[in-house]
Amino acid sequence: MTEKKVTIAFLAEMVQGELVGDGSIEICSFAPLDSAGQNDITFLAKDKKEELLADTKAGAVIVPLKVVGTYSFPCIKVADPYLAVAKIHTYLLNEEFIAEGVHPSAFVGTDCLMPTEVTVRPLAVIGNRVKLGKRVVVESGVVIGDDVFIGDDTVIKANVTVANGSILGRRVTIHSGTVIGSDGYGYATDAMGFHHKRPQVGIVRIDDDVEIGSNCSLDRAAYGVTWVKAGVKIDNQVQIAHNVVVGENSLIIAQSGIAGSTTLGRNVVVGGKGAIAGHLEIGDQVMIAGGGGVHNNQPRGAVVGGRPAIPIRQWGKAVAVFAKLPELHSDVRRLKKEIETLKQND
Amino acid sequence: MTEKKVTIAFLAEMVQGELVGDGSIEICSFAPLDSAGQNDITFLAKDKKEELLADTKAGAVIVPLKVVGTYSFPCIKVADPYLAVAKIHTYLLNEEFIAEGVHPSAFVGTDCLMPTEVTVRPLAVIGNRVKLGKRVVVESGVVIGDDVFIGDDTVIKANVTVANGSILGRRVTIHSGTVIGSDGYGYATDAMGFHHKRPQVGIVRIDDDVEIGSNCSLDRAAYGVTWVKAGVKIDNQVQIAHNVVVGENSLIIAQSGIAGSTTLGRNVVVGGKGAIAGHLEIGDQVMIAGGGGVHNNQPRGAVVGGRPAIPIRQWGKAVAVFAKLPELHSDVRRLKKEIETLKQND
Amino acid sequence: MTEKKVTIAFLAEMVQGELVGDGSIEICSFAPLDSAGQNDITFLAKDKKEELLADTKAGAVIVPLKVVGTYSFPCIKVADPYLAVAKIHTYLLNEEFIAEGVHPSAFVGTDCLMPTEVTVRPLAVIGNRVKLGKRVVVESGVVIGDDVFIGDDTVIKANVTVANGSILGRRVTIHSGTVIGSDGYGYATDAMGFHHKRPQVGIVRIDDDVEIGSNCSLDRAAYGVTWVKAGVKIDNQVQIAHNVVVGENSLIIAQSGIAGSTTLGRNVVVGGKGAIAGHLEIGDQVMIAGGGGVHNNQPRGAVVGGRPAIPIRQWGKAVAVFAKLPELHSDVRRLKKEIETLKQND
Repeated sequence: MTEKKVTIAFLAEMVQGELVGDGSIEICSFAPLDSAGQNDITFLAKDKKEELLADTKAGAVIVPLKVVGTYSFPCIKVADPYLAVAKIHTYLLNEEFIAEGVHPSAFVGTDCLMPTEVTVRPLAVIGNRVKLGKRVVVESGVVIGDDVFIGDDTVIKANVTVANGSILGRRVTIHSGTVIGSDGYGYATDAMGFHHKRPQVGIVRIDDDVEIGSNCSLDRAAYGVTWVKAGVKIDNQVQIAHNVVVGENSLIIAQSGIAGSTTLGRNVVVGGKGAIAGHLEIGDQVMIAGGGGVHNNQPRGAVVGGRPAIPIRQWGKAVAVFAKLPELHSDVRRLKKEIETLKQND
Repeated sequence: MTEKKVTIAFLAEMVQGELVGDGSIEICSFAPLDSAGQNDITFLAKDKKEELLADTKAGAVIVPLKVVGTYSFPCIKVADPYLAVAKIHTYLLNEEFIAEGVHPSAFVGTDCLMPTEVTVRPLAVIGNRVKLGKRVVVESGVVIGDDVFIGDDTVIKANVTVANGSILGRRVTIHSGTVIGSDGYGYATDAMGFHHKRPQVGIVRIDDDVEIGSNCSLDRAAYGVTWVKAGVKIDNQVQIAHNVVVGENSLIIAQSGIAGSTTLGRNVVVGGKGAIAGHLEIGDQVMIAGGGGVHNNQPRGAVVGGRPAIPIRQWGKAVAVFAKLPELHSDVRRLKKEIETLKQND
Repeated sequence: MTEKKVTIAFLAEMVQGELVGDGSIEICSFAPLDSAGQNDITFLAKDKKEELLADTKAGAVIVPLKVVGTYSFPCIKVADPYLAVAKIHTYLLNEEFIAEGVHPSAFVGTDCLMPTEVTVRPLAVIGNRVKLGKRVVVESGVVIGDDVFIGDDTVIKANVTVANGSILGRRVTIHSGTVIGSDGYGYATDAMGFHHKRPQVGIVRIDDDVEIGSNCSLDRAAYGVTWVKAGVKIDNQVQIAHNVVVGENSLIIAQSGIAGSTTLGRNVVVGGKGAIAGHLEIGDQVMIAGGGGVHNNQPRGAVVGGRPAIPIRQWGKAVAVFAKLPELHSDVRRLKKEIETLKQND
């Protein structure tokens, strides 16, 4: 990574933070609190750990609003240090795109449209009638089918598969091993128990600013579109079945699965290993705890856990009792006997 | 896709349906109810929604037996519209196989047997002594090991791995990212806690008409064979451990896992995220609800859910009470006090 | 595999077993009990099945200590037949490494260091400044990024991805479809609900003698290192999040997931589909039953099950009562009525 010197005043303004100290000091990189040096900016996540600032050798520190001490280094006070770090670190790492062009060992089909400023690495495969935007990166081992559209600044990491007809937006990142657009799972079973494939002729559409982790599966629609909307972030090993719609800015944590034709609203959060059955409507801002299994529509803002999922507080209380079930069971048995005794005495 | 004009009478006979209306009308493709036009056949899934037929612009409609209205377009009445659609849509999409041959950028090892009518796409890799059937398609990025046999009309999608010694039947489809024949997970642990690998020298055998989704893992047997029998349909991200046998026409939904040496009978259904422990016998037609975890042998026809799995009705009732456990718990506490009082008064 | 004749006496000494019978007899391979012939050694797993020995045609048998009969073939008596088999079978299969060199169709970047005795198969991709140890095998379809270090005798199976900066030890095996070093899942969310990526600039380090199954995901650290220590064995489809540390000789069974920054001690066992939340400390020798979900730190040696996980015995009793919850529920309802009656009579 190239060095990029910037003043603390510039960074404070970038994150709309309060500058405390000498804003003219320059740093060029970001590092964690325990390893940051004079040329680094670092951050303190929580004001309760303010004593950690005493030992830092960082050139500057992003701190929560409640930090009270005065320090020899400049600070940027912000409401959310993690958010400020995300923006500042990303800015510091950001480099000008240098197009490598299409490597001669890559295979590109016919009638493709691609600008000169792309990078297609060795032994990547691109089908026919594919359109790549500017500054797209297609890493080695990627296989892109026919009639695929990929927007500007999108990065397809090594060994990803993007099947025929897929549409990817701008600034999308797909991590290695992920499969976009394989057939949905749909069969009709005859009286003999044989399964007849229902053709899967739709596509996958992925909107701007989506990031998808490694070894995920996003199936093409039976008809129409499986649709991941803008700003969605999907972790590793997630399964998105045919005709699912994932609303803007939703978060889907690792090893979750969403069954066919279910629609998620905006800013939904699906915890790790979460499961959502098919043909459901999950409202905006619903949160599903890790391991939760949702079998019913969920209204906007619902927070649920368990399998089948119930409201999270109820689930929390129920699992606490679950652990005591053996005692509860013997209590009830004893009560039965005692009541028998009382009835006889009555 | 090429256009293929067929009469409604022909299609009605193909699915053994009852033709109502003008059988000489021709269509050439299938489309869903809301988008079908004059050249399309479409379908109505449920007779309760018959009012939807009023607005369709389709050339013909596949309908359930109970539909009562008379329409300007011909109908094909069938017991199972989904099944009729699967057959008709597949028929309409079906095209003559056009062999692309072996692309010069693909790598093919020595002593392979392959007919002229195969398609091996750019940058696919085929090992030594591999035998491909007629009309086999090996897409880009596929790696096939040594001594593999692949039957007629089988399709290996992009970036699949088929390891040494695997045997694939006819009309098999393997979707992208799936790994056939990696080593099973078997170790013996010594007194120091070190794990010694137990060699995995068996193979994977996949019979005719099997379809396997994306990013699945099917491990080779320790000795002998891991065997997926004819007509089985496996969804995405499924794990099949060493020496598992999956009986004919079983369905294994996404993210399920089957541990080593377990045998499934015919027409078993494993719901999404299902788990089956090792060394079990799962009878014909057993159904495991999504998220279910089976730890015991299951007799033919058993329907189970939960972890550990119990009969599905019992599970349904138990989870209903589970949600009420906090109230049940306080009820029992109150009862204990009341009985104490009664005993003192007694 | 080449034939390798060895005496039973040699093998008995190798596994520190007790030789019973003629140690000068030679065998050259291993086979299971029911298929072993005169040139094979086989094994009996449990002394209770000693009657099976009557029918074997094997040249020699590895048996448990308690076997009592005398047989025409030599036996090797050991405390753990599985362990002896693992060692003997591995020895018999072991072949001298024959380097295939770097295939001309593979792509190798600049400034790489690799000894002559490596195997890089057709259409593998190796980035810049990569260092390979002796006898490393990189199969077809593998993509290795820049600045990767791979130790002696390590095998990277087909279609694996090893991202920039990863460090792999000696005698490591990575199975197909696995992704080492994709970005961790880390975002900071702003007031509008947009997620800002937190740069993931750490690496993955994998120590000696680790084996990782197919289609796993091991994310690079946000900063620092995601670390899989020596002797760890990971099954298929396992998710290891950023900054996780897996202690020596731990076993992680298929489809498990470990969330970010959690540390596992030595010889931990995570059952299939296990889940561990983030930022936890899991002590040495902790065992998590299949499907268990751990939300709290676990002390050394804890054995837990369920979601959320509780001590395994408690969990076993609780699930037994869970299945009886409907009866328990009606018992309590009846008790309430009876107490009402008693109170009125009181």
